Amino acid sequence: MSDQLPTPDAEIAALRANPKQTLRAVSEGMEAHLYTANKVLDHGFVRVVDYMGDDSAIVQAARVSYGAGTKAARDDAGLIRYLMRHWHSTPFEMCEIKLHVKLPVFVARQWIRHRTANVNEYSARYSILDREFYIPAPEQLAAQSRVNNQGRGAVLEGEEAARVLETLKADAGRSYDNYQAMLSQDGQQGLARELARMNLPANIYTQWYWKVDLHNLFHFLRLRADPHAQYEIRVYAEEICRLVADWVPAAYSAFEDYRLGGATLSAKGVDVLQRRLRGEVVTQETSGMSKGEWREMQELWG
Amino acid sequence: MSDQLPTPDAEIAALRANPKQTLRAVSEGMEAHLYTANKVLDHGFVRVVDYMGDDSAIVQAARVSYGAGTKAARDDAGLIRYLMRHWHSTPFEMCEIKLHVKLPVFVARQWIRHRTANVNEYSARYSILDREFYIPAPEQLAAQSRVNNQGRGAVLEGEEAARVLETLKADAGRSYDNYQAMLSQDGQQGLARELARMNLPANIYTQWYWKVDLHNLFHFLRLRADPHAQYEIRVYAEEICRLVADWVPAAYSAFEDYRLGGATLSAKGVDVLQRRLRGEVVTQETSGMSKGEWREMQELWG
Amino acid sequence: MSDQLPTPDAEIAALRANPKQTLRAVSEGMEAHLYTANKVLDHGFVRVVDYMGDDSAIVQAARVSYGAGTKAARDDAGLIRYLMRHWHSTPFEMCEIKLHVKLPVFVARQWIRHRTANVNEYSARYSILDREFYIPAPEQLAAQSRVNNQGRGAVLEGEEAARVLETLKADAGRSYDNYQAMLSQDGQQGLARELARMNLPANIYTQWYWKVDLHNLFHFLRLRADPHAQYEIRVYAEEICRLVADWVPAAYSAFEDYRLGGATLSAKGVDVLQRRLRGEVVTQETSGMSKGEWREMQELWG
Amino acid sequence: MSDQLPTPDAEIAALRANPKQTLRAVSEGMEAHLYTANKVLDHGFVRVVDYMGDDSAIVQAARVSYGAGTKAARDDAGLIRYLMRHWHSTPFEMCEIKLHVKLPVFVARQWIRHRTANVNEYSARYSILDREFYIPAPEQLAAQSRVNNQGRGAVLEGEEAARVLETLKADAGRSYDNYQAMLSQDGQQGLARELARMNLPANIYTQWYWKVDLHNLFHFLRLRADPHAQYEIRVYAEEICRLVADWVPAAYSAFEDYRLGGATLSAKGVDVLQRRLRGEVVTQETSGMSKGEWREMQELWG
Repeated sequence: MSDQLPTPDAEIAALRANPKQTLRAVSEGMEAHLYTANKVLDHGFVRVVDYMGDDSAIVQAARVSYGAGTKAARDDAGLIRYLMRHWHSTPFEMCEIKLHVKLPVFVARQWIRHRTANVNEYSARYSILDREFYIPAPEQLAAQSRVNNQGRGAVLEGEEAARVLETLKADAGRSYDNYQAMLSQDGQQGLARELARMNLPANIYTQWYWKVDLHNLFHFLRLRADPHAQYEIRVYAEEICRLVADWVPAAYSAFEDYRLGGATLSAKGVDVLQRRLRGEVVTQETSGMSKGEWREMQELWG
Repeated sequence: MSDQLPTPDAEIAALRANPKQTLRAVSEGMEAHLYTANKVLDHGFVRVVDYMGDDSAIVQAARVSYGAGTKAARDDAGLIRYLMRHWHSTPFEMCEIKLHVKLPVFVARQWIRHRTANVNEYSARYSILDREFYIPAPEQLAAQSRVNNQGRGAVLEGEEAARVLETLKADAGRSYDNYQAMLSQDGQQGLARELARMNLPANIYTQWYWKVDLHNLFHFLRLRADPHAQYEIRVYAEEICRLVADWVPAAYSAFEDYRLGGATLSAKGVDVLQRRLRGEVVTQETSGMSKGEWREMQELWG
Repeated sequence: MSDQLPTPDAEIAALRANPKQTLRAVSEGMEAHLYTANKVLDHGFVRVVDYMGDDSAIVQAARVSYGAGTKAARDDAGLIRYLMRHWHSTPFEMCEIKLHVKLPVFVARQWIRHRTANVNEYSARYSILDREFYIPAPEQLAAQSRVNNQGRGAVLEGEEAARVLETLKADAGRSYDNYQAMLSQDGQQGLARELARMNLPANIYTQWYWKVDLHNLFHFLRLRADPHAQYEIRVYAEEICRLVADWVPAAYSAFEDYRLGGATLSAKGVDVLQRRLRGEVVTQETSGMSKGEWREMQELWG
Repeated sequence: MSDQLPTPDAEIAALRANPKQTLRAVSEGMEAHLYTANKVLDHGFVRVVDYMGDDSAIVQAARVSYGAGTKAARDDAGLIRYLMRHWHSTPFEMCEIKLHVKLPVFVARQWIRHRTANVNEYSARYSILDREFYIPAPEQLAAQSRVNNQGRGAVLEGEEAARVLETLKADAGRSYDNYQAMLSQDGQQGLARELARMNLPANIYTQWYWKVDLHNLFHFLRLRADPHAQYEIRVYAEEICRLVADWVPAAYSAFEDYRLGGATLSAKGVDVLQRRLRGEVVTQETSGMSKGEWREMQELWG
């Protein structure tokens, strides 16, 4: 893997040194990012390999659908905000992005659950994986949350932290040594790659090309850039957010306002807020909500 | 619709007069087609609005998956042929195309059944449709096939042909006149557009932006450029074939050989051919096939 | 079409008279609906042909994912509410429904835009359509809205209403007469069905089998049972809502609370409400919202 | 995991002891399989949790599409064969199956690439995985193929085989011991589950509910029951083939004939066979094929 992928700096420089002419829509903000590897975690990265469309491509597609009525009054950013507010998805599907991502296998397993995307993953049936493992930084080495079955709590301290780091490194190293030893054809037959890979732990790095349209990318980012997402996938989502903000600034700004920063209310939640706006004091008992839902309501609304 | 769409020639000329620089993969063959309307049927067209990737993008994605083993020996066209032969779909998904298509509604209804694509269609809820209808050319005015429930037979002749053309034109014209009359707010309230549209026949033209990846486009083309497809959708598929051949020549050539020009055999079909190659004379009775299957077998293999 | 589809009452009675034994999950509420045609519009219907799963199937799938932690404390309805509140989609995908729907073509064209479903539509290439057209009831014959490009306003009155109804009926009737005349093989060759259908207007009825999972059905219902949806598709969505409420009562109740009756706020909207809850008087100017967004905000929050 | 999943025998017996009445289509062949765990590999299984439809549901959907023409002459099995031969996919999509599968993680990673399916996987963020690993049987412990980059060759022999087995067992055991030690809250904080899981190797077992329609299942089975598929996923596909043969016997029989046992020819391949049938001796040189394609051609056709 290492001898050709990730793309070496010299190759990236060559790709970036050779602009060509095109008649297609061009996003200057995205051209500046093309091919460059943006580091994530200890050995991972995200880099943009290609893109299709820009903010004006969204507007153009909306105008095919909605015709002249949308043309006159409204400026592009206003139309994009309108589309986002009213959950129009198809104009955003008219933009597409292709990323090259290097990421630990346990992150890849979460990521792939987003099915509306195209993927070409490095195959450990065909090729031999590199000796690269994700080892958390000390400030990410967290204990199990006591209140959230699927979250983390306080950072591990002292000897326990040291012990965990030591274990993760030692197990990864030994598993990889044995992977190589089983593959070796030096004085033995050498185990098939498709079998040997089963000895590798979930923090080994893999990589893939991932291609997705902007609507589905926003859905991914809403879930994975959320504070409740696991840190190790969230940092990828946050890096992609920065790239998208440069690619389609108006669409990203609408996404930030309506999705990332927005909130969803149930019918009961609407009722509670309407009553509070009228001056009523509402309690969990009078809200009709369960304890869990009431607690989540209070986190945002006091 | 007519005042802004389809894009007037002057606007196309302006779009084509203004090349920009990009670091992305560029297909020279496709740049030559961008924005230009390729006429299909009497008032329809297909034009390329954007594209992502080229032949080398397919190869690049395959090499992410299959690693160094694919790099050394094989040239790009050979690798693309290998991928097509072995039904590898994901590398072809790494290319994407966006088309602007104007087409009769009854063609659009067939087309939309291909679900793995993105669509923005002109909305007759928002806007008023133009007075444009598909009227078949005389050589396409065919009788119902006597042998195929879903096909055409001989071309209509003489008075019957004239009568049919006259009927199609008259009904379309009157339906459209009445559509306008119901919409009119001149001395009356004016029927809602979302209701008035129900009076329009299926040969009225609509238009949409249609975006699809190359793998799914090939699937569409295999079914719709097939001689058994209805003529009115086949001519769109054939036009798109010509565009794709210029966009990704190696991939299109492999598609032509393995899909468009290829054949599929059942286990019984394989058995029949193997026996014939050994010199045996096989009949329907000894083939184990039904009459229909045997007839289809003979069409290709004599 | 009429001689076999829609299923005649006698056949429905036969299907309902013949219960069989199964070990699968059974929803008693849905068994009561199976096969019966629920009338929609003037000639349309929705009927349930098959279903998979019930409320407990959702819970069961969630417990495969989330393990023992979800088992102990929570009752099924509470868990389903939790899943809906936190946008967990996969457990709802574990239920599936298959409907037989008869509907006008212009409704079918909206409906099919929901791509994550399976469809078998009656083919007018193979078969001849029946003489059945949607003609709006007088109270649905509305003028174009003056404020909403895609909506209806006041009901048409007096002579205009009568004129529109007369036009819709006459054009549909004449188009169908001519469709039959062109198809006829009596003393002429007879036009191919795949061509003759182009003369039929968009209010003719078609029918299809439509199969979808519960998550995607809820998405469809949220958009199409919404007051802003066109009346002619909304009545189908509302009928399906009634069926789903009997099929998976806990899931439907959560859907009603969190989706149908809920609300979405942008970051700006959250800010406005938080300020109002603290006693501040917020105006459009101090909200940072556009006029359109502010107007929509006031509709719900005063 | 073990305390509740996989479902214990007593619970399966209870589920199977309690038939209910239904008006839906029932497949007797599938009822016999419901809930029972069919063992695959050393600790895995496949079991049917639910299904929708049977052979007659495919026929019924086809007849909605193609109308009366398909009703008269043809029997059900003949129609199903016709649909399969002509690549009609939508009638097969009208059947659905839900499986509960226990499988090694490296198999799950291949499986999930089939995107058109619904999945609920056991979450190692929420819950603790069991101490169960796939260890190949001696006859599956194969060397890397010398001719196929992604395949296996001869079985490992003697000491090398023993060494590999010993390594796989020891590394899995140690990784799991350390996983538990890091999770433990006995005298320490205890590492978060979402982090600890990264220490586990790819041969640990996971499980999921997997729901898919029959058309997409056939696509999965064609690729994964193929002799070139990796053994560890092929045995799952083969087990599912046995279940499907009992569920929809006519459809499975058509699938076996046209897909599993069939062959695909390129235009060049058709040309070669046609020339050979006319008595010509064709060589690689005169075939126009590459060496690889010619070799594959000869494997089937001599």
